[in-house]
Amino acid sequence: MDQQNIIITLTSDFGPGPYVGIMKGVILGLCPKAYLVDLEHDLAPQDILAGALALEQAIGVFPPGTVHLAVVDPGVGTGRRPLVVDGAGGLWVGPDNGIFTPVFLADPDAKAYEVTDETLFREPLSHTFHGRDVFAPTAAALAMGRDPATLGPLVSAPVRQDWPQPRVEGEALIGQVLMADRFGNLTTNLPHHEVEAFLHGRTALISMAGGAVKGISNAYGQSEPGKFLALFNSQGRLEIAVNQGSFLERLGLKPGNERGLEVRVEAA
Amino acid sequence: MDQQNIIITLTSDFGPGPYVGIMKGVILGLCPKAYLVDLEHDLAPQDILAGALALEQAIGVFPPGTVHLAVVDPGVGTGRRPLVVDGAGGLWVGPDNGIFTPVFLADPDAKAYEVTDETLFREPLSHTFHGRDVFAPTAAALAMGRDPATLGPLVSAPVRQDWPQPRVEGEALIGQVLMADRFGNLTTNLPHHEVEAFLHGRTALISMAGGAVKGISNAYGQSEPGKFLALFNSQGRLEIAVNQGSFLERLGLKPGNERGLEVRVEAA
Amino acid sequence: MDQQNIIITLTSDFGPGPYVGIMKGVILGLCPKAYLVDLEHDLAPQDILAGALALEQAIGVFPPGTVHLAVVDPGVGTGRRPLVVDGAGGLWVGPDNGIFTPVFLADPDAKAYEVTDETLFREPLSHTFHGRDVFAPTAAALAMGRDPATLGPLVSAPVRQDWPQPRVEGEALIGQVLMADRFGNLTTNLPHHEVEAFLHGRTALISMAGGAVKGISNAYGQSEPGKFLALFNSQGRLEIAVNQGSFLERLGLKPGNERGLEVRVEAA
Repeated sequence: MDQQNIIITLTSDFGPGPYVGIMKGVILGLCPKAYLVDLEHDLAPQDILAGALALEQAIGVFPPGTVHLAVVDPGVGTGRRPLVVDGAGGLWVGPDNGIFTPVFLADPDAKAYEVTDETLFREPLSHTFHGRDVFAPTAAALAMGRDPATLGPLVSAPVRQDWPQPRVEGEALIGQVLMADRFGNLTTNLPHHEVEAFLHGRTALISMAGGAVKGISNAYGQSEPGKFLALFNSQGRLEIAVNQGSFLERLGLKPGNERGLEVRVEAA
Repeated sequence: MDQQNIIITLTSDFGPGPYVGIMKGVILGLCPKAYLVDLEHDLAPQDILAGALALEQAIGVFPPGTVHLAVVDPGVGTGRRPLVVDGAGGLWVGPDNGIFTPVFLADPDAKAYEVTDETLFREPLSHTFHGRDVFAPTAAALAMGRDPATLGPLVSAPVRQDWPQPRVEGEALIGQVLMADRFGNLTTNLPHHEVEAFLHGRTALISMAGGAVKGISNAYGQSEPGKFLALFNSQGRLEIAVNQGSFLERLGLKPGNERGLEVRVEAA
Repeated sequence: MDQQNIIITLTSDFGPGPYVGIMKGVILGLCPKAYLVDLEHDLAPQDILAGALALEQAIGVFPPGTVHLAVVDPGVGTGRRPLVVDGAGGLWVGPDNGIFTPVFLADPDAKAYEVTDETLFREPLSHTFHGRDVFAPTAAALAMGRDPATLGPLVSAPVRQDWPQPRVEGEALIGQVLMADRFGNLTTNLPHHEVEAFLHGRTALISMAGGAVKGISNAYGQSEPGKFLALFNSQGRLEIAVNQGSFLERLGLKPGNERGLEVRVEAA
C-alpha cells in the first residue's frame, strides 16, 4: 500500500457467508488500489440502528477521506434511494434508511447525494444484492477520486433513524440500553456529558433490572469480579457491566433482547 | 497495492480460529505482494457442496488472474490429489474432491493439474493441515507468476461434485434447496432460464413445505412483511424467502438442515 | 504492498463486533503502509491461554519482523503493564498477563519492555479499550520502525501463563486437553517428542473419557469414518479426533468445556 491508497471500510448484516468477499471482488476489479477493512458484518439481520452504532464508532478514527460502505438494506429492490454522504471526515455509501444518522449528528454540514448515475451499476442489476451491484461499484468510484456531487442530486432530507433519547422524570435521568457487546456489557444511550450535567457533582445511584450500584467506576477491574458496575465506555456512553462476567447473562437474556431496557440515574 | 499485486481469495471450513491467519502468514512470507481476500470460512465442516457454491459466486466477479485458495478437505493426509485448476478467469487451488465443480461447469476448457512438485511444500509436511503446508505455498507460487502447467501432470478426470439437478415430473418442475443464507432465505437449484423455459409465459405457482405462492416477485419488498415469496436471486437461481423474516425459522429448521427440501414449480 | 510494508497481525477476544475494525482504523491512520492480518478474534472472552495458543501457532510462520497485536485484557484500566516483547522473530504487543508465554518458551532471549511513553497513546485515553488507545498506536509505531527499547524500561519478569504440563504416573503418561478446534478435534498438551520418548518404540494405547485406541494414526482418513483416533497435529501435539466427525460432540460437550480433560498414553 502506498500513500495514494484509499481505505474502504465495509459494514453489513451479511454475516460470515460469501457476500462480503463478493463485494470486495467487485471493488478490487474497479479500484485495485483500495485497501479494504471490515468494520462489522455480524449485525443482526436488518438492524439499521445496530449498523448506525457501528458506523458511529468509526467517526474520527479512520483517516480523512476514508470511504465507508454500509449495507443493511431491508428495502433492497424497492424505491429506497442509494445514498452517498460527504461528512464527518469521510464518504459514506449505502441505502437511504437512516443508517448514516450518526454522520448527520456529528456533522451538521454533511451533504447527502442520491446515486442516480446508473452507468456505475453492475449489469445485470439484481433486485436482491445491491451491495454487489450498486454500493460496491459506487464505493470503488469514490475511492478512484470521483466527486460525490457528480453521482446524482443533493438530497435535502435524507432518512434519519429514530435515535432513542434520554429523558428526565422527577428526580431521575432515564436512559435505555442500545446494545450489548460480546462480553455482555450493555451500552446505554446516556452520554458522559449529559450524565455529568445531571449529577452536578452528586454521587450517582445507577439502577437497572432490580439491581443498583452507587458510583461510577473508572475501569472494569475496579470492582470485585462478578460485581455489577457502571462506567463510561470507549464510546463516551454510560455502560452497565459485570467485572469478568456478562451482565446480559445475569439478566437471563439472549443477545439481541437487551435493547430498550431502562436504566435510571439518580443522586445517591 | 500497486497494479502488479495479485489477489488471492481464501475459502475454507476452518471457522473463526487461527488456521486462516496461519495460511495468510505462509502466503505473505512467500509472496509479499499478495492481496488477500476472505471469501467464506464458515462453511459447515467438510461440506464440499457449500464450498463449491461459495466459489461459484466468485466466478466473473474477481479480476482475471485472481488465485482462489479453497480448503474443505476431509481427505487431508490421504491419497487425494492437490489440484490447481486454470479456468473461468482464475487459478483455483485446493483438494481434488469436487469443490471446483462450478469452475468446470462454467468453463469446459478449464485445465486441472495435480501438484506434484513437492519442493513447494512446507517442511515438515503435516498430515492434518495441507492448507498451511501444501495449498498456501502453491497459491503463493501462482501469485508469484509460476505457470500452473509446471506444477505437475494434467489431470484428465478431476473429481466432480454430484450437483443436484432439477427434474420435470408430470406437470411440475421439481427442484430442491441447496442452502440457506444468513437471513433464512433458501437458494434452490432451479436456474432462472430453466424456470422461464418451463413456464413459457404462464404464471408460476411455487409450492414448498405446505405453503404456496402465485407469481415470482422482483424484490423482497414487493410482498408484505412476513409474507412467503419467490424470486430470482443474485446467483440467478429461484429463491424462497419471507420479506423481513426468515423462511428457515418459519419451517422450524436449524441452519444446515434445509438442503434437499423439495420445491415445486407449476403453472397457476 | 511493496517490500517495505510491515505485517501487523491482530488477535483478540473481541468477537465479530466493530472493535477490531476500529483498531485497524487507528493503525492505518498512523502507519498507512501496515498490512493487517487477522489471526483470531473469536477467543472465549478473557481466555488468556486460548490467546497464547493462537499466538504460538504464528511463531515461525509469519515473516521476520512481523508485529503481532494481541488483546485479551481482563485487567484493562487497572495497573497491569502494556508490554512489547521482542523475540521469536517478531514484535509482540499487548497486556502483561501471560498471553506471550509461548514467545518466552520459544525464545529464551526474548526481551520484554513496558510501554511507558504515553505520547504514543490516543487522547482521551479510555479505561475500557486499550486495544484502540494504547496497543494499536504502539503496534503502528513499531511498524513505522520505532525501536522497542525506546518505548520504556526492560521488564525482568513478565507475567507467564501457567502452562499445564504432562506428568508420568506409574506406567502412564498423563496429559490434558488444551482446546477443541472447530471440527471438535481436541488438542492436548502432549508434544510429539515427549510422547515418542515415553513410548520408546512401543505401540501406544491412548485412552480418554472411557474410549481407547491402539496406535497413533498419520491422518484423519486412516481410520474409518466415525472412529476414534489419535494423531500428531499441525502444532506437533497429540490430538484426539473422530474421522469425519466431532469428538467434542461425541463427549456431549459444548465448545469451551473440554479444557483439562485427562488423556492417558500407555504401552499397548
